[in-house]
Amino acid sequence: MANKPSIPKGTRDFSPQEMLRRKYIFNTIEKVFQKYGYLPLETPAMENLETLTGKYGEEGDRLIFKILNSGNAWDGVSDNVKNAIKAGDAVPSGRLAAELSEKALRYDLTVPFARYVVQHQNEIAFPFKRYQIQPVWRADRPQKGRYREFYQCDADVIGSRSLVNEVELVLLMLDVFDALGLAVEIRVNERKILHGITQYFGVEDRAMEFITILDKLDKVNFEGLPEEYRKAGFSEFVVQELVPFLKQVQQPTEEIVWGKPTALNKKFAEKGLAYGSVGDLNVVAIIDGVKRARPDLTESQVVHDITLARGLNYYTGAIFEVKALEGSLRSSICGGGRYDDLTGIFGLKNMSGVGISFGADRIYDVLLELNKFSSHVGGSSDLLFVIPLDEDGPIRNSVTNWCIGLSMKLRRLGFSVEVYPDPSKLAKQFTYAEKKGIPYVAIVGESEMKEGKVTLKRMGANEKGDLMTIEELINKLKG
Amino acid sequence: MANKPSIPKGTRDFSPQEMLRRKYIFNTIEKVFQKYGYLPLETPAMENLETLTGKYGEEGDRLIFKILNSGNAWDGVSDNVKNAIKAGDAVPSGRLAAELSEKALRYDLTVPFARYVVQHQNEIAFPFKRYQIQPVWRADRPQKGRYREFYQCDADVIGSRSLVNEVELVLLMLDVFDALGLAVEIRVNERKILHGITQYFGVEDRAMEFITILDKLDKVNFEGLPEEYRKAGFSEFVVQELVPFLKQVQQPTEEIVWGKPTALNKKFAEKGLAYGSVGDLNVVAIIDGVKRARPDLTESQVVHDITLARGLNYYTGAIFEVKALEGSLRSSICGGGRYDDLTGIFGLKNMSGVGISFGADRIYDVLLELNKFSSHVGGSSDLLFVIPLDEDGPIRNSVTNWCIGLSMKLRRLGFSVEVYPDPSKLAKQFTYAEKKGIPYVAIVGESEMKEGKVTLKRMGANEKGDLMTIEELINKLKG
Repeated sequence: MANKPSIPKGTRDFSPQEMLRRKYIFNTIEKVFQKYGYLPLETPAMENLETLTGKYGEEGDRLIFKILNSGNAWDGVSDNVKNAIKAGDAVPSGRLAAELSEKALRYDLTVPFARYVVQHQNEIAFPFKRYQIQPVWRADRPQKGRYREFYQCDADVIGSRSLVNEVELVLLMLDVFDALGLAVEIRVNERKILHGITQYFGVEDRAMEFITILDKLDKVNFEGLPEEYRKAGFSEFVVQELVPFLKQVQQPTEEIVWGKPTALNKKFAEKGLAYGSVGDLNVVAIIDGVKRARPDLTESQVVHDITLARGLNYYTGAIFEVKALEGSLRSSICGGGRYDDLTGIFGLKNMSGVGISFGADRIYDVLLELNKFSSHVGGSSDLLFVIPLDEDGPIRNSVTNWCIGLSMKLRRLGFSVEVYPDPSKLAKQFTYAEKKGIPYVAIVGESEMKEGKVTLKRMGANEKGDLMTIEELINKLKG
Repeated sequence: MANKPSIPKGTRDFSPQEMLRRKYIFNTIEKVFQKYGYLPLETPAMENLETLTGKYGEEGDRLIFKILNSGNAWDGVSDNVKNAIKAGDAVPSGRLAAELSEKALRYDLTVPFARYVVQHQNEIAFPFKRYQIQPVWRADRPQKGRYREFYQCDADVIGSRSLVNEVELVLLMLDVFDALGLAVEIRVNERKILHGITQYFGVEDRAMEFITILDKLDKVNFEGLPEEYRKAGFSEFVVQELVPFLKQVQQPTEEIVWGKPTALNKKFAEKGLAYGSVGDLNVVAIIDGVKRARPDLTESQVVHDITLARGLNYYTGAIFEVKALEGSLRSSICGGGRYDDLTGIFGLKNMSGVGISFGADRIYDVLLELNKFSSHVGGSSDLLFVIPLDEDGPIRNSVTNWCIGLSMKLRRLGFSVEVYPDPSKLAKQFTYAEKKGIPYVAIVGESEMKEGKVTLKRMGANEKGDLMTIEELINKLKG
């Protein structure tokens, strides 16, 4: 292979520095998940093709990565297709692909989760609270911020209709971003309210389309929204009245506190805005529950936003979205909602659940932009032993062995320690420490070894280094 | 979908309980990796097909999972192949597969690591110490203990010829199994010694084949080994003399301490058994270095075993293998070795490295058999709040809110806490705690709430539970 090797477009290598930061994010989230009783689950990267197809719409089906049957894949192709090809007929490509492939890479974590729940329903203790942090694959056109392989980081509870789950998931999200040191706003809404609005405007037969367009509000703002509805062929009543309507009910006045018997609410109720079976006043109850458990929250940290829509069509109840209040990223970094029939696609009915998903790549970008990683992310070694003898020989060997012994002692105390392995110039060894972000080097030559001491130098400091005992070294590293 | 959904053969779901155990293993290994200065790396699941093909032998090539090109894969097939199919010629299946697929799932972590090093050689601080814990995929016939998707857990250092790396990797392996509480034996050998033996027997032209057969020793024992060499067509001299020879040099007498100028060593040296460029007396130096750093080790924990072969053909120096001294598993649970030219396949020469790989599935099985998980694996919640009101209503709502508030307080103190969400019979709530392995339940009804207390019950204990203050609850959980 003459050319430098490369990786498929839309995929990424994660260098050690990137990995340490990613691990810090995932570990932080995981710890909070576990504090709320969510436990880890992993499913295979490959699912049977029939498990995935038809679950993500037509466009989604096209974006599923299919795996070529192993062995002689051609043997599995039907005579019909083979004959069509031989006859020179138009090649039935979708069908050919289906016959060449029985397995595919998972497209998200939600469908495999539903598949797992149905498959293992008799072993599971419901309500089942699981989290899952694994990569997914989509044959999307790669572009800035959109990859063909990326991690999803989901927590779901299934088999419970209680709003306790919604309240606790909002508290959980708050805890995660507290732990990451990022100020956020959590917006809450109810799909049933949105369906009520479609009834109010007489477009309940196009409800999902209506919601999908409303979901673009963040991008097009109130100014651009009417045109989006016009383009989609909605009536002029919707085009002209929706924005004033949304602005009115979005005002944070007593009027729009949901569930209160105000004139406005009465108007909604007449139009069929009553909530469904999960319970009345969901948004009020959720926000109220959160604020009781967290009286320290400011008014704006958890809010009801009647314009919040979320794109996914399986949500049926509460929906959430989290945005960073710092940094330049305007899109959401976490979101979720309640669904009433996720496992129905696999034949298990009446399993209501609610889940959230953290956007790890976006959270990474925000923390990086705000320089919030440095003090939290560990991983670099605490100390590098540097041996100022650049030729092999029995003296260097003795010094090296002595340093390895010291390393063991320090590792036992909890420090990460390295010994520079090869006989090299001091400058090269220092460069290694610098590039790896190791804060201290301990220089050990024959004289240091004989005295049982090291010459400690702080990287970046303009000093010769201090000769010190091992006890002093340990205290220095602890400090 | 009428049938219960399933997953592809050879793949696995990992339940929360299994995941907690797996995470415990991986986290334990990872912590030790980092203490020795190894940092995490991740590469994409998909590599370009040309990166992988030709790296694992003919059999390996067949076992690579290929990904069907997205979009209309058939359009990418060449006219030659299409015409051959249309003409009804024998279908060139391998070639068809190659034309339908440009990407494949990684088969191991070693080739992607080599690819990464070559691709990023200008950014990397050598010696480059990385670890990588990711799944790999092989289209092998599934059988007990052999999966089509499984995790590899590797640490490698590349760009250093120093034996310090071998010494530290042995120390690292010892630390990992210490941390896992598993007694092990580490065997060390040198590929150059094995090549010396092939010279002694005059079969250096079939060295790799000779080594591959020797690698079966664990399965066939000394009794079965001659037949293996006979079947492979080796001379009667090898068939009849090899085992007595190995037994002789395997005796733990002064005679076979490598490097010592004994009569036996002299005999080897005459036959070309001198070590190569990495340095003489490697095995002696490695074991000596390890024992200096760990004077507490017993004689049998790290040994030189001249019969240790390892199957992989890229090893050129020291090789290692770890076996559990407890439990029924006889195969190795960790292994590795030095390679002199891993990155040569991608055009970067003279990059010597050494690496080890932990067999996570096997380690899991051993720890499970020996019941070594229970006391170490956390993850289950510490406490479940149980509300003895099985109907919704304002009282239940108040109690629930009070429990959520208490949960927040306990989580802040580091505990994992859950509130049973739905109005249910007490028995059902207790079953939930039992199935999830939650040790304590706090029963909170209206009277408890009014008193600001909980009734704490230890799961499994035959008691009514104790009414106690929140302070007492916290102390109980801490104890």
